[in-house]
Amino acid sequence: MDATKKYCKEAFSVKTLKRRFPIITWLPKYRLKHLQGDVIAGLTVGLTVLPQGLAYAQIAELPPQYGLYSAFMGCFVYTFLGTSKDITMGPTAIMSLMTADFGQTEWLPHNATNAIILTFFAGIIQMIMGFLHLGFIVQFISFPVINGFTSAASITIAFGQLKNLLGLKGIPRDFLHMVYETFRKIPETNIWDLVMGLCSMVILVILKFIKDLKYDDEEGVVLPMSTKVSRKILWLVGTARNAVVVVAAAGIAAALLAKDIDVLSLTGNIQEGLPPFKLPNFTLQISPNETIGTGQLFQNIGAGFAIIPLIGLLETIAIGKAFARKNDYSIEPNQELIAMGAANFLSSFVSSYPITGSFSRTAVNSASGVRTPAGGIFTGLLVVLALALLTPLFYYIPDAALAAVIITAVLDMFDWKIYLTLWRVKKLDIIPLFSTFIMSFILGIEYGILIGIGLSLMIVLYPMARPHVKMGSKDIMLVQPDQGLKFPGVEYVRDKIYTRALIGETPRSVVFDFTHVSGVDYTTVQLVERLYEDCKKHKVQIAFAGMRPEILEIVESAKIPEFAHFHTIEEAEQALSEEKKPLLARAHSSNATDERSATPSRYMSINRDIGSVGPHVIEIPEQMNGIDKSATSISPLV
Amino acid sequence: MDATKKYCKEAFSVKTLKRRFPIITWLPKYRLKHLQGDVIAGLTVGLTVLPQGLAYAQIAELPPQYGLYSAFMGCFVYTFLGTSKDITMGPTAIMSLMTADFGQTEWLPHNATNAIILTFFAGIIQMIMGFLHLGFIVQFISFPVINGFTSAASITIAFGQLKNLLGLKGIPRDFLHMVYETFRKIPETNIWDLVMGLCSMVILVILKFIKDLKYDDEEGVVLPMSTKVSRKILWLVGTARNAVVVVAAAGIAAALLAKDIDVLSLTGNIQEGLPPFKLPNFTLQISPNETIGTGQLFQNIGAGFAIIPLIGLLETIAIGKAFARKNDYSIEPNQELIAMGAANFLSSFVSSYPITGSFSRTAVNSASGVRTPAGGIFTGLLVVLALALLTPLFYYIPDAALAAVIITAVLDMFDWKIYLTLWRVKKLDIIPLFSTFIMSFILGIEYGILIGIGLSLMIVLYPMARPHVKMGSKDIMLVQPDQGLKFPGVEYVRDKIYTRALIGETPRSVVFDFTHVSGVDYTTVQLVERLYEDCKKHKVQIAFAGMRPEILEIVESAKIPEFAHFHTIEEAEQALSEEKKPLLARAHSSNATDERSATPSRYMSINRDIGSVGPHVIEIPEQMNGIDKSATSISPLV
Repeated sequence: MDATKKYCKEAFSVKTLKRRFPIITWLPKYRLKHLQGDVIAGLTVGLTVLPQGLAYAQIAELPPQYGLYSAFMGCFVYTFLGTSKDITMGPTAIMSLMTADFGQTEWLPHNATNAIILTFFAGIIQMIMGFLHLGFIVQFISFPVINGFTSAASITIAFGQLKNLLGLKGIPRDFLHMVYETFRKIPETNIWDLVMGLCSMVILVILKFIKDLKYDDEEGVVLPMSTKVSRKILWLVGTARNAVVVVAAAGIAAALLAKDIDVLSLTGNIQEGLPPFKLPNFTLQISPNETIGTGQLFQNIGAGFAIIPLIGLLETIAIGKAFARKNDYSIEPNQELIAMGAANFLSSFVSSYPITGSFSRTAVNSASGVRTPAGGIFTGLLVVLALALLTPLFYYIPDAALAAVIITAVLDMFDWKIYLTLWRVKKLDIIPLFSTFIMSFILGIEYGILIGIGLSLMIVLYPMARPHVKMGSKDIMLVQPDQGLKFPGVEYVRDKIYTRALIGETPRSVVFDFTHVSGVDYTTVQLVERLYEDCKKHKVQIAFAGMRPEILEIVESAKIPEFAHFHTIEEAEQALSEEKKPLLARAHSSNATDERSATPSRYMSINRDIGSVGPHVIEIPEQMNGIDKSATSISPLV
Repeated sequence: MDATKKYCKEAFSVKTLKRRFPIITWLPKYRLKHLQGDVIAGLTVGLTVLPQGLAYAQIAELPPQYGLYSAFMGCFVYTFLGTSKDITMGPTAIMSLMTADFGQTEWLPHNATNAIILTFFAGIIQMIMGFLHLGFIVQFISFPVINGFTSAASITIAFGQLKNLLGLKGIPRDFLHMVYETFRKIPETNIWDLVMGLCSMVILVILKFIKDLKYDDEEGVVLPMSTKVSRKILWLVGTARNAVVVVAAAGIAAALLAKDIDVLSLTGNIQEGLPPFKLPNFTLQISPNETIGTGQLFQNIGAGFAIIPLIGLLETIAIGKAFARKNDYSIEPNQELIAMGAANFLSSFVSSYPITGSFSRTAVNSASGVRTPAGGIFTGLLVVLALALLTPLFYYIPDAALAAVIITAVLDMFDWKIYLTLWRVKKLDIIPLFSTFIMSFILGIEYGILIGIGLSLMIVLYPMARPHVKMGSKDIMLVQPDQGLKFPGVEYVRDKIYTRALIGETPRSVVFDFTHVSGVDYTTVQLVERLYEDCKKHKVQIAFAGMRPEILEIVESAKIPEFAHFHTIEEAEQALSEEKKPLLARAHSSNATDERSATPSRYMSINRDIGSVGPHVIEIPEQMNGIDKSATSISPLV
């Protein structure tokens, strides 16, 4: 009871409250000077997210307004819960691509039901992960895998937009098909769309160049106000270039339409106004008398329930850490998870698809001089205003201009230099990188990253599956694994003992030294049990030595009847070689001894240098995988 | 050229040929005494696989004949390629369940096209894995995960057969729905089916009991021939109990039909004769003018391409090892993979769904006294004969009798005792066990095992993500990780240094000691690079010490301009504390020295006991996850 009370007290203490709601810490210190930075940055980010949101919804294969539905609630929520002043939440290119992969159903294309269900559960899963301190799992996704994934995503996304740039219709989603059909249909290109798209891209590239201009003024010279202001304006236009291009393109389209020139592919009519605030639908009505049930929808999402929260986590933490280091503060990864989870959860009530931290907008936010997470409030308000007032105008936005926004944004994500670097520095790491990249195209980006994670984990895990085991070559074989002995390595050790000691010409007794084994699991305990079975069957004896107290306790709890443990290798060897009577009897007496003197002190002796058992210990070359045939030469003919 | 020649020579040597075709080794030694054992065992297994095949096809949601199509080619192929005399290939309960999960399409239910495609590719993938020696990956599936998976499979399969036992129609596949609908429809039970099913089950249990009877004869007493023969007959009836029950049930059904009593649910008409030998279809015609393309079929299979070969591998290797140990021989895991791969690949030409080693039939094979892999020939021939001659008779087999065969077979697979054992021995291992078990019901058995694998790997990997790092507390901070430093642990170390040395009240220089670091990857090299960035930004210095030659070579290949490496910690500390000039200059001179004396001998000194740097080294408690707030107390308000 006291423990529960204490836990509750801690859980609801001011400190915890401050950790869970970082706004409590920074709001009291909020000053007017902060407001200026936050308003300017928030609105600049807002100008970026408006065109991006409309464009990214295309990638997610949803109607354009969903990109804006996804762009405001997250900003509001993050202001209260976030630990980084720079991060802005909302739709991102990669998350939109993943939404297209997992949030679309074959029953009703371009319907948002599954995407919103994903947002809802991604939020819950992320919050749970945050509370359980599981943020560390992103560290198991290695840099080469992330790199291969983002490179593949950038190409997939950019290529997926070619159809809009060229004004092609009826292009399939599947990457290989898409490439084939896009090339096949090039003759059907709508030249107006193409011109609009290319012009937009050129202007976007020029404006980006202007934004990044470095002026090499002489030091100490005071610049005239006019220069300063014009530079500032150029920078602002460059930063808000997406909005500038989209507005200009929409203006041209509207002007053409006014003259009855209907040649461009336009966004067209979209749902007006703000989304309703309501619980997501968990069923999908596909016709007046046919409804798809929750179970089927969930099955359709499948692995998306795992991958979407993970990708969200990956993006937010990576961005958060990068900008925290840049601006000299630190973020709390698990609180970030909770903040992002809450942002997704609440966003699902306003028909948002899954959101996460956006790298491009976080950079805009930081560069625009944001001071606190309050900047998000102004970003969110601008989006809400746009939804309330501007939706009728979105009709005129050309698809090709949005495609240009996407293509120029994602092509930066492709990194070919990493291949050269890895070739020079660490060739083995090319395997997960290249596999992720290639498999993303062949099997789809969601499987590409899973395969990459699997491969890179296999590379770090391989040494565990092939533990370094020293084996003595005398009458009594000494087996000495050199560190942890957990399930990936257990079978290997058992096979080694089997072929080396039990089925050779002259079966030998075995002493198994645990001195260097620092951790075990249930499979290790099973190993001990099965080694007794193996040895009994071949009429040889086995004894264990040098287990640490905590390991001995685990093994003893399994109550293996024959189990015999000795403090030192010598004691074990002596016991096996001296006694002619069955080990069983001896083992019981040894067990009795163990129970009698179960104090830590009796384990002191096992920590001596084991080098002294020396001369008869030989080492087995690592490359000897599988079964040592030469030692056994057994055919299946028995 | 010479290397290629040598490789080719080795690849086509007699030794390699013998390893790839084990039959070359054992066939010349084949004698008549072996034939007797092989014929009896082969036919006994055949009697088992006939009813099992018909029944398992039900689990796979395919017409019954597909169970038999899957039961002969694998036996033939394995005779030539297998390294175990006991293993028999064919349909299994778990593989049939996985086939239902991945081999069914919504376009045309109970169609085998996707299942056969899976067989084809599972075969190719398994062969490739065998040639690449990837058999070791099964070791990454821990015992608790396998246990949770088979337990969940047994319940899913058994429950899925309840509808046949009760004669219910229209039960959905999805487990939770299935349970709900089965209970809801209990009033619709067909009492005839139920009686037939229950009687079959009771007889099966009795026959199994008879087979396992132990007779305690006095030692030395010679038994009369009649006793011996009757015992042998009882054993045979017990072993072939499935065939006995199914034949008897079919006889009763036929007799009832002859009297115009049409009350039992029967198998009904099935395709007569042997399957054609042809390449699998890679498209699916669902109506005269609608065909589903290869791409869509492949997408439908999805993760099945990875999971099916893996489950097959898991079953075969586990069974092979168990029986090899029992009968004193050894198997070659990678050759087993090739044998199973070839068996699947060729089976796909005779319309088989994915096959693997069957535990129950391998046990029958072994117990019936099989002597060589040639037993499979006789099993296969019996199945071929049955397909050629008996298919018209399968009409009369009652569904309830097949359900009884399945239920009695799979209920043994459920193991509840393991929960008690793990609770007693190693509580942490209950997490992957229980998660696999429960998630198999909630998300489907294919995701259950993936989640289990993920969790158990996370448990063994966690120590890698939280490497034990000693950190000194003086003016110059000494950082000493205690073993491998690869991607899962890199971020943690960087965060530690960041919060401990760089953003504290008084930023300190850092000496990073690699003495105990045994392995690195590209992410580690990035760590070095980024630590220089971090340190430069905070105007402190960093130096590295004690790298092994192979690690130093990797780090140097990255050409980090500021990189400075010293042989010993003392040298590094001295360099950092003595010099007031920027480290950059000093680093370059150090690099020059490194290149001049790049002989192994200069690394000798780093292997001394590092305990001597002692007194100012403190240890950071392991539980200090994430960011050390107390040391930094940074708010997002900047």
